[in-house]
Amino acid sequence: MPHIQLPEGVPGPRGPMIFRPETAKPINELAEILLRGPSTLTQAERELIGTFVSSENDCQYCQTIHGAVAAHYLDGDEKLIGHIKRDFLSAPISDKLKALLVIAGKVQQSGKNVTSQDMASARAEGATDLEIHDTVLIAANFCMMNRYVDGLATWTPEDPDFYRQRAAVLAQHGYLGSATRR
Amino acid sequence: MPHIQLPEGVPGPRGPMIFRPETAKPINELAEILLRGPSTLTQAERELIGTFVSSENDCQYCQTIHGAVAAHYLDGDEKLIGHIKRDFLSAPISDKLKALLVIAGKVQQSGKNVTSQDMASARAEGATDLEIHDTVLIAANFCMMNRYVDGLATWTPEDPDFYRQRAAVLAQHGYLGSATRR
Repeated sequence: MPHIQLPEGVPGPRGPMIFRPETAKPINELAEILLRGPSTLTQAERELIGTFVSSENDCQYCQTIHGAVAAHYLDGDEKLIGHIKRDFLSAPISDKLKALLVIAGKVQQSGKNVTSQDMASARAEGATDLEIHDTVLIAANFCMMNRYVDGLATWTPEDPDFYRQRAAVLAQHGYLGSATRR
Repeated sequence: MPHIQLPEGVPGPRGPMIFRPETAKPINELAEILLRGPSTLTQAERELIGTFVSSENDCQYCQTIHGAVAAHYLDGDEKLIGHIKRDFLSAPISDKLKALLVIAGKVQQSGKNVTSQDMASARAEGATDLEIHDTVLIAANFCMMNRYVDGLATWTPEDPDFYRQRAAVLAQHGYLGSATRR
């Protein structure tokens, strides 16, 4: 049961977003820009960064829904999502994405853990300053969202099909107004 | 030196915000609503929650600037800021704020650490659902900002007067457009 009185039957951050629409607006705008705005990182890559950070934060709702969105973009490859969460260094993804996931994983622990060597490694794989900036901010943003979702004990459905269906809606319509969209 | 090429001589998150104005806009809107919007929590109380979380995250820039903003609202009582960071339970603040700081401290570690007992304690001191919601989101938001600032190794001035002067500007003008305001 959620820690505060939220609308019933609304999973994850959507409950608190309906409860507090003023803060939901900029939260969703930030997600839309970071995860779906113009970028040289694919939408799948950005969702994978968020999924990995959510997994490291042990946030069941966020890692499952964003993993499902990433899988949606990757022809339903849910096996890859599990592989990245367990051990991304051995996953069949680009070396650039691996270097960015290293940075995201450090940010998840503490911003101070990111080193110049991590930056050099990412740049050696072709990462730009903007890609590094967005990786740090996506990772930081999921550290906020994971805490928002779990800190209020929001509802986390267990049926994997719920997440697959919801992921298709998010992939089509995005995050703006997502709290109230069925 | 910052991890990516940022405008020189611009401290804390302002460098990355000038570098990436698209994401700066919703980030500042969220801060403005949470820290300065209509609320039954005072602006000082909300800045103290952010300062405490930043201190727990060991983010020098954020704990110093938001501590200075809180002190600005509290007639310059910088001693109280230090006391809250060291041991808020023995600080001369309300029992309600203490109960909210307990929740904020749990959120800083992990959203999952927040318990029903923490909620009951806050409610026993008069905290409303909206105050609890905002406390969780403020704490989560600072977990994002601390990581944004430190994950990019942004510039952290050492002169305490810099923070006092900047705090007066923030207290007067707020967070909207703060990245580019001198």
